[in-house]
Amino acid sequence: MSNTTSPSPALLDRFAAIVGEANVLREPADIAPRLIENRGLYRGASPMVLKPGTTAEVAAILTLASETGTAIVPQTGNTGLVGGQTPREAGGDLILSLERMNRVREVDPVANIIVVDAGCILADVQRAADNAGRLFPLSLGSEGSCRIGGNLSTNAGGTAVLAYGNMRQLCLGLEAVLPTGEIWDGLRRLKKDNTGYDLRDLFIGAEGTLGVITGAVLKMFPQPLGRQVALAGLASPDAALALFQEASNRCGTALTGFELMPRLGVEFTTRHIPGVRDPLASPHDWYALIDISTSDSAETAERMMQALLEHGFEEGLVEDAVVAASGAQQAALWHMRESMSDAQKPEGGSIKHDVSVPVSKIPAFMEEARLAVLEAIPGARICAFGHLGDGNIHYNISQPVGADKQAFIARWREINHIVHGIVLSYGGSISAEHGIGQLKRDELAVIRTGIEIELMRRIKRSFDPAGIMNPGKVIAAG
Amino acid sequence: MSNTTSPSPALLDRFAAIVGEANVLREPADIAPRLIENRGLYRGASPMVLKPGTTAEVAAILTLASETGTAIVPQTGNTGLVGGQTPREAGGDLILSLERMNRVREVDPVANIIVVDAGCILADVQRAADNAGRLFPLSLGSEGSCRIGGNLSTNAGGTAVLAYGNMRQLCLGLEAVLPTGEIWDGLRRLKKDNTGYDLRDLFIGAEGTLGVITGAVLKMFPQPLGRQVALAGLASPDAALALFQEASNRCGTALTGFELMPRLGVEFTTRHIPGVRDPLASPHDWYALIDISTSDSAETAERMMQALLEHGFEEGLVEDAVVAASGAQQAALWHMRESMSDAQKPEGGSIKHDVSVPVSKIPAFMEEARLAVLEAIPGARICAFGHLGDGNIHYNISQPVGADKQAFIARWREINHIVHGIVLSYGGSISAEHGIGQLKRDELAVIRTGIEIELMRRIKRSFDPAGIMNPGKVIAAG
Repeated sequence: MSNTTSPSPALLDRFAAIVGEANVLREPADIAPRLIENRGLYRGASPMVLKPGTTAEVAAILTLASETGTAIVPQTGNTGLVGGQTPREAGGDLILSLERMNRVREVDPVANIIVVDAGCILADVQRAADNAGRLFPLSLGSEGSCRIGGNLSTNAGGTAVLAYGNMRQLCLGLEAVLPTGEIWDGLRRLKKDNTGYDLRDLFIGAEGTLGVITGAVLKMFPQPLGRQVALAGLASPDAALALFQEASNRCGTALTGFELMPRLGVEFTTRHIPGVRDPLASPHDWYALIDISTSDSAETAERMMQALLEHGFEEGLVEDAVVAASGAQQAALWHMRESMSDAQKPEGGSIKHDVSVPVSKIPAFMEEARLAVLEAIPGARICAFGHLGDGNIHYNISQPVGADKQAFIARWREINHIVHGIVLSYGGSISAEHGIGQLKRDELAVIRTGIEIELMRRIKRSFDPAGIMNPGKVIAAG
Repeated sequence: MSNTTSPSPALLDRFAAIVGEANVLREPADIAPRLIENRGLYRGASPMVLKPGTTAEVAAILTLASETGTAIVPQTGNTGLVGGQTPREAGGDLILSLERMNRVREVDPVANIIVVDAGCILADVQRAADNAGRLFPLSLGSEGSCRIGGNLSTNAGGTAVLAYGNMRQLCLGLEAVLPTGEIWDGLRRLKKDNTGYDLRDLFIGAEGTLGVITGAVLKMFPQPLGRQVALAGLASPDAALALFQEASNRCGTALTGFELMPRLGVEFTTRHIPGVRDPLASPHDWYALIDISTSDSAETAERMMQALLEHGFEEGLVEDAVVAASGAQQAALWHMRESMSDAQKPEGGSIKHDVSVPVSKIPAFMEEARLAVLEAIPGARICAFGHLGDGNIHYNISQPVGADKQAFIARWREINHIVHGIVLSYGGSISAEHGIGQLKRDELAVIRTGIEIELMRRIKRSFDPAGIMNPGKVIAAG
C-alpha cells in the first residue's frame, strides 16, 4: 500500500525534476485551492502539486510513484462533487494536475472526431467543435471549468444524455498511463472494434483509481438545423412523466433534453441568480424544460414542439407553456435550470443526492421520499430537479427557514440513508452521474453484493499492485 | 490451468446430475453439430453437452468445473464466425448450452425495457418487443438462430448500429455467473448509474472467457412511424461515402442503415438466392442500401429520402435509385443485402475479413486492399460489402473461377495478413463485430502493445483463476 505520510524532501525534489520547478506548486497558499472541493465536504492535505506537460512526464511521475509507494491524486478542473479529486487528510498524497495538457490535438469534421488532451476544458472542446461546424454535446453546469479527464473519469452525464449519451458513449478511444508508468495507447477512432476486453470503459468512470487518462478521441455530431426550447408549467411529476413519454415516442432522439424542476427551484433562481426571471404568468407546482433539436430542417423542430404542447394542453398535462423565440431566450431558460444548484446556497445548508430510478418510477419515488424526508426534518425544503428523461434526479434538500446550518448538514448521512433506501427499493442508483469518490465509498460497499465489490478489488489490484492511484476512492483497500 | 483430456466417467456423471440426464447430450452423433462452426474452419471435441435450465444450475456447473479443473465452453446459437463457441480439439471441454434458458422474463413498454434469459433467440426478442408496440433494433443475418448470450458475448453489431448502437449500447444490465460459480446480479434498469467499475461492459464482448452471461436487461425503442428504404446505384465507394455523409448530416439518427454492396455481390445474390432480383434497370459498379426511420411522422421519412436522393442525383453521386413502395419491397431490398454472405458459398471458397476503418478512409482502404489482393491472387473476386456508416466492411474474397477451393482457402492467413496490414495502417480494427475467438487470437497478441495484452491477461486471471472459462479464446493462457 502507498505511504500516508509526506514524502521526504529529497523524494519531492525527484518528482519536481520530472516536470521542472516552474511546473510545481510547493507553497501551501498555492496548493490550498486544490485541497478543497466545491461543496466544502472534504479537505485534504498535500505537499506538492505536479503539472506535467506531456504524457511521457505523467508516465515518469507514475513510475517513480510506484517505485517509492507515493500516492498520486489526479486532478483536472476540481469540480467533482464526491471528493474523488481531493487528496486524503494524512498529507502523503501528491496532486497530479493535468491543466497544462490542454491541447486540442486534432479536429476532423469529416470523420466527426475530435482528439484532445485530458486537461482540455469542456467549454473549449465544445468551442473547437463549433468552429468546425460540429456539435460536441456534453453539457453541464461546470463546463467552463471542468476538464475532459475528469469528465471521462466520472463518466459525466449532464443535460444532453437523453439523445447523445453520457461520456462513455461519446468516447471512441483513450490514452492512459497505468500506475506502473506504462502508457496504453488506445486512441482508436472506430465505431466498431471487437478486439478483446473493453479496457476503455474500465478506465472511464474509474475516477482515477486505475490510471491517469491523458488523451481521448471524442465523437462530434452534425449541428442541429432546428432547435426549440420550451418551458411548460405542470401540476405534478405524474404529468411530467406522461408528457415525457409522449415526447419520447414522438421525437425519438430529436428530444435532446427533458428536465424537471419544482416551483421552489424556480423561486430560488429568480430570487438569487441575476437575470433569471419566471417567464410564465402565474406559478405552477412543477415545470418541464423541453429541448428538441432536429437535423433535417428547422421546421421539423417547430412542428414537433407545437404538436407536443398541443397534445399536452388537450390531455390536461400542460397548464401553461412558453416557447423560446430566440437563441437568447433559449439560453435564458437553460440558465434557470443550470443555476438551480447554485441558487440553493444562499438558502442555507443543502443535503444533496444524485440518484436515478427507472424513469417510470420517478413520481412514486418523489412522493415517497418527500414524505420520509419531511417526517425526519419537518420544514425541510425539497428542491428536487434534474434529468427526468434519464431517470436522474438531483434530490436536494434545503434546510428549514431559520434552522442552524451546521446542525442541518450534520444530518447528511442520516438523510442520505433514508433517501437512498427508497431509491434502492425502486432498483435505483445512489450515484447516477457524480460517481462514488469518498462520499459514497462505504455506502457502495454495503449496498452491493460481496462478489461485485470483490471483482472491483481484483481489478484494482491487477492494475495498481502498489496501491498508489487515488487511494481511498471508489473502493477501500483490502 | 484446466485439463485438456476428457473428464472421468464419474466426473461426467456429477456434471450430468446437476441438470438431470434428460438435459445432457452424451451420444457423439448428438454432440457433433455443436463441435463445428458455420464456416467449417474449426472442429472441436467434447464428451458432453450440458443444458442447464436455471442460473442456479449454471452456477453449480461452474462451481464443480472450478473445483475439478474442467474447461467449460458456453454456447448459445452456435452462429459465431471466429470459433469462439467451438471446444478445443483435445476433448477435455464440456459444452454448456443455454438453449433451455429462453424465457422472456419481462416486457415493460412504459420503461422501454425487456428482460430476457441469455438463451433467447434474437428473433424472439424482436417479436416480443414488437408485440408490445416497441422496437428491439439489433438485427443481423442469423437472427433466427443466434441467441442473446452470444450477441452479448460478442458485442454483436449488425445493420442498425448506425442509429441504435451495438449490443453494448443496447444493454442496461446483466446477470452473469463467474467461473467460480458465484452469481453477479447486475440486472439494472437504469440509464445512468455511476457506481464503480464498469463490470457490465467487461462481460460484454469477453466471448465467454470471464464468465457465463445468463440474463440481460435490454433497451427497447418506439417503433418508427415512417420508414423509407432505397437502393441507389453508384459509381464508386467515394460516391457512397459522399452520399453517406450527406445523409448523416441531414437525417442524424433517423438514418438507421447505410450499407455498401458491390456489383459482384448483387450478381451472386440474384444468381443463387431464390427470390432476389436486381430492382434497377441496368447494372452499377456499387450500390448503397439506405434506410431512414422517423418517429414523428411518416411524411418526415418520405421527405428526407426524397431530398437526399434528389441531392444525390444533382451532385452526380447517384446514377439510379429505387425507393421501396411497400413493406414487402423494403424486406426484399434488405434480403438481398443479408443474403450476400450465403450467396458466396456456391461460388467456391471465400476468405473473409471483418474489418473497420475510420469511415472517411473506406474508399482509400478498399482500393489499396483490392490492388494488394489481386497482386497476391490474380483473378480473385472481391465481394466487399457492409456497414459503410460504421466504417465496417466484410471484406470477403471469393476464389478465382475454376480455382481449387482447398488451395485457395489454404491462403487464408496469408491474405488476412495482407488485408489486416492495410487495415492497421489506417488505424482500423481486424475484428469490427465478430470478435477474436480462436481465429484472430494470435494475431491480436501481435498487433496490440504488450501492456494491452498484459492487462487483458490480468483481468482474465483475476476473474478465472482456475482457467476453466472458454480456454484458448481471445487471449492465450500465460
